[in-house]
Amino acid sequence: MIPRHFHHVLRTAMVDNEPPPAILTIAGSDSSGGAGIQADLRTFAALGCYGSSAITALTAQNTTGVQGVYPIPPEFVSQQLSSVLSDIEIHAIKTGMLHDTDAILSIVQTLNSHYTGAKMPPIVCDPVCVSTSGHTLLQPGAIGALIQNVFPISTLITPNKAEAELLVSRKYPGFMISSLEDMVTAATRLVEYGSACLVKGGHITASLQDVERVMRAYPQASVVKDELLEENMEILQVGDDGLREPRLVVDVLDLGNDLTLFVRPFIVSENTHGTGCTLSSAIASELGRGKDLKSAVRLGVMFTHLGITTAPKIGQGHGPLNHLHSISRSTIPGRTPSNPFPFTRMLIRKSQPVWKQYVEHDFVKLLGQGILPKEAFIYFIKQDYHYLKYYARAHGLLASKSNKFGDIHSAADIVLHIMRELETHKSFCAHFGITVDELESTPQSLSTIAYGSYLIDIGMQGDPAKLTMALLACLLGYGEVGLWLKREASKPDSWVRLEGNPYLKWIEDYSGLDYQAAVRTGLAKVEEQAIHDPPSPERLQEWCEVWEKCTWLEKSFWDAAMSEGKSA
Amino acid sequence: MIPRHFHHVLRTAMVDNEPPPAILTIAGSDSSGGAGIQADLRTFAALGCYGSSAITALTAQNTTGVQGVYPIPPEFVSQQLSSVLSDIEIHAIKTGMLHDTDAILSIVQTLNSHYTGAKMPPIVCDPVCVSTSGHTLLQPGAIGALIQNVFPISTLITPNKAEAELLVSRKYPGFMISSLEDMVTAATRLVEYGSACLVKGGHITASLQDVERVMRAYPQASVVKDELLEENMEILQVGDDGLREPRLVVDVLDLGNDLTLFVRPFIVSENTHGTGCTLSSAIASELGRGKDLKSAVRLGVMFTHLGITTAPKIGQGHGPLNHLHSISRSTIPGRTPSNPFPFTRMLIRKSQPVWKQYVEHDFVKLLGQGILPKEAFIYFIKQDYHYLKYYARAHGLLASKSNKFGDIHSAADIVLHIMRELETHKSFCAHFGITVDELESTPQSLSTIAYGSYLIDIGMQGDPAKLTMALLACLLGYGEVGLWLKREASKPDSWVRLEGNPYLKWIEDYSGLDYQAAVRTGLAKVEEQAIHDPPSPERLQEWCEVWEKCTWLEKSFWDAAMSEGKSA
Repeated sequence: MIPRHFHHVLRTAMVDNEPPPAILTIAGSDSSGGAGIQADLRTFAALGCYGSSAITALTAQNTTGVQGVYPIPPEFVSQQLSSVLSDIEIHAIKTGMLHDTDAILSIVQTLNSHYTGAKMPPIVCDPVCVSTSGHTLLQPGAIGALIQNVFPISTLITPNKAEAELLVSRKYPGFMISSLEDMVTAATRLVEYGSACLVKGGHITASLQDVERVMRAYPQASVVKDELLEENMEILQVGDDGLREPRLVVDVLDLGNDLTLFVRPFIVSENTHGTGCTLSSAIASELGRGKDLKSAVRLGVMFTHLGITTAPKIGQGHGPLNHLHSISRSTIPGRTPSNPFPFTRMLIRKSQPVWKQYVEHDFVKLLGQGILPKEAFIYFIKQDYHYLKYYARAHGLLASKSNKFGDIHSAADIVLHIMRELETHKSFCAHFGITVDELESTPQSLSTIAYGSYLIDIGMQGDPAKLTMALLACLLGYGEVGLWLKREASKPDSWVRLEGNPYLKWIEDYSGLDYQAAVRTGLAKVEEQAIHDPPSPERLQEWCEVWEKCTWLEKSFWDAAMSEGKSA
Repeated sequence: MIPRHFHHVLRTAMVDNEPPPAILTIAGSDSSGGAGIQADLRTFAALGCYGSSAITALTAQNTTGVQGVYPIPPEFVSQQLSSVLSDIEIHAIKTGMLHDTDAILSIVQTLNSHYTGAKMPPIVCDPVCVSTSGHTLLQPGAIGALIQNVFPISTLITPNKAEAELLVSRKYPGFMISSLEDMVTAATRLVEYGSACLVKGGHITASLQDVERVMRAYPQASVVKDELLEENMEILQVGDDGLREPRLVVDVLDLGNDLTLFVRPFIVSENTHGTGCTLSSAIASELGRGKDLKSAVRLGVMFTHLGITTAPKIGQGHGPLNHLHSISRSTIPGRTPSNPFPFTRMLIRKSQPVWKQYVEHDFVKLLGQGILPKEAFIYFIKQDYHYLKYYARAHGLLASKSNKFGDIHSAADIVLHIMRELETHKSFCAHFGITVDELESTPQSLSTIAYGSYLIDIGMQGDPAKLTMALLACLLGYGEVGLWLKREASKPDSWVRLEGNPYLKWIEDYSGLDYQAAVRTGLAKVEEQAIHDPPSPERLQEWCEVWEKCTWLEKSFWDAAMSEGKSA
């Protein structure tokens, strides 16, 4: 009964369960959840990556500060690392708070011995030293160990102003950053430690003039601007201030032979807890997804920027970023082996009362028993003749709205299918003594006009998907009725009577291979559509309303046959 | 220049930054990320909640087993708890691995003292005792402390088969679960410890007959079925086996006076690492979102079920669930103060080369200098007369496709706006000695037919949103050109000449209040649309193609004026 190709559709479209890139964070834990491995893991998830972690220290911490630090013995940090590395292929690593020299040495040794003879994944090192609230997160004596051991195996280090000053000062004592030029100098000097360097500008604001001045001094450098007005965007300016001469934040990326300034508007925000963790994790995620370093930095910077800009107020101090700014909940559950038609099932469930009134209509029950009054059936079949014309036209309309030959073809196929249905319809009518002339001259009933015109109206109003929703109630409902009667008939002592039933051919037509194959094709089509062009909640709501209205119009169609047919 | 109401639109639609419910997990850490606080936090995020954590113990663990456990001193567990509770309002709590009696007592004391005189948030206790791989996660002596201290303050406990047996056996020695009836008995007995109880059925399979038998024994109980075929769903059956007589998993929820069986298909899967953590976290999230317990359990069960069903292969043993099965990446960045038109900006960026060729067309530059050949302008303005008819018709079509009076109204408003534009157009033409008759009788050029018909075609094919995309390039482009020329003219020694420019009125029209207000309204409308009915990647792609094609057709329109106008 199920066409061969349909099994294929089911199997291949089931679920996209390609494993996501796995990213590892080696960092501290933040109980409040806004920074540390908690921010890292949330960032990995938001960017579609799988996260593992080796915890170096616990903090008792919230948005107002760090209340306590509990370091984990280096051996157990390494044991966590080994557990992860020995089992899961890691696509990128991010390091945060490493606490002390012993931890650093132990971590680097574990990494080196795991990757002996193999390529290490990209490492983004956030050289966390001191918390915003002034709590020491890296023992002062450990900075040398960080520089000597972690930087050389890192793809990128991401110091903020204070960290860059601290790190540069080891070679150039007293070094301070107070301008964009100083940031460039810091980046250039830090690259000497062996990895690319991103000096973060969150603590310094700049102007477009500053950027232009630096660009003149470094003609090989490039600038990446985001959220700033560009050429040919006069219409996007709001008001006369702000956007034209904004205060800017500039991050400086030095790849050794390649300098880039990442420029964006400065945001006044209290919610910056975990900014550094988030940025380095976002960059690691993008590297893990295969992006090159410059693209990864740009994406990471903007991910973090949006996280700050959209942060809700959580806690009483510097609240966490919103890591979930660019994800949304799906409206339709994924297709699974036990639920291969999640979208259709949802449609039916949402319209359950009307759907039941339709497919278990008295018309159907009496027809199944073979005792439906002949007048009711004749009334129905005459109106159905008119309806089929609307239904064929609606598929013509669908073809006209389609953009792909495949869709035009399948809509036309259904028109031809309806033409075949029409032939059996006519021979049926002949059997009841009704001529084609009589069919044509029968006035359309209210319910026929309502239903038929509604199909055309929806077709004119919306896109092909919406029209498909309108066409579905007829296709699926008759398939359901046909299967149900057939299945009931096969039970012992069934109320359905096939033998001698004057409507047997009708039952056989709709439970038969040809019609049921069309039902399967329709099901596959709407499920595919829901996967490939998932509707927003608003669009889904529209679809559901159209489906339910057509279900109700189907019921009304049989209502009319039962009431008008008697009086006819 | 900006209508008053527009500022309102901008402010209110900026970003939904209502804080999400905050959920706290008190549990162990799993380095591999599939269980423990890592699974909890990922679940919270996937369900739109903010997560905090108090870590009770670290594990060095992966998908093949637990390699090491490092307990955290109870005082530091409590310190983490205090940091979180003193700063963030918690909407629900989930407890997992609590390790030992001291930790349990310390946690419960901290909770009790924090919530003295206040209502504790709902607590979901996952009574974790032993890992799947046999590692002890709760010291045997601590089970009594768990029962006596944690259960009475919990809203729900969620034991699996082994845990339920262990817990029931303390009162009813030797108690074993081997049937659905035993699960019900276990739930009923565990409720005696003071909270509702969900006995999880993942380790036992049942049949529909088993469920029916239990329902006969407990007539007050109710059944919730998910992913099973229901009434009037004959068409959703695939094949003859499986879905009709499936192997089932049943979870038993006892609220004390209310018994519910949650029934779903059994899934054969290796990827069940962290199932218990995920379920209890999902239930806590739903409770934190304000759901009642029964709804929260149903949603949590299905969240977990989908997590197992859609899990990709990660690691070499029992892989983690897919927690991200029901979220997707947004296609359009959120609206922020520094980027109030993210959708339009994206459109312009994606079509940057064509957009620039359009709005910085030679036609525009010569017009701005006042040296555009008169023939080119006349050619343009004659064709524009025809184009405006298409443009008005397309807005009539938009009105006909709209479902709300507001949208019908605004489309009709634009038609009237075009009619006014037409009048100034005619007087312009009169100024150049062109009569209305001449305008009407001028043959349409290829570029006019192409652009005009394309608008109508897109309108016929798609939904109102797609038609709006087609209508946007004209609206925004002329606004951009008008503003650009006006702004350039205001610069010292400008190349734009307003005084004595024969096309001054044209520049003033498109940079003027009336037209620019229409541009603002159009911008607000498409941005609202992108927020309220966010497109899928496929739909966005369609929109971008339509926008870019219209941008190109605009450019072609001026190309024709420049080349044909000369020869005319």
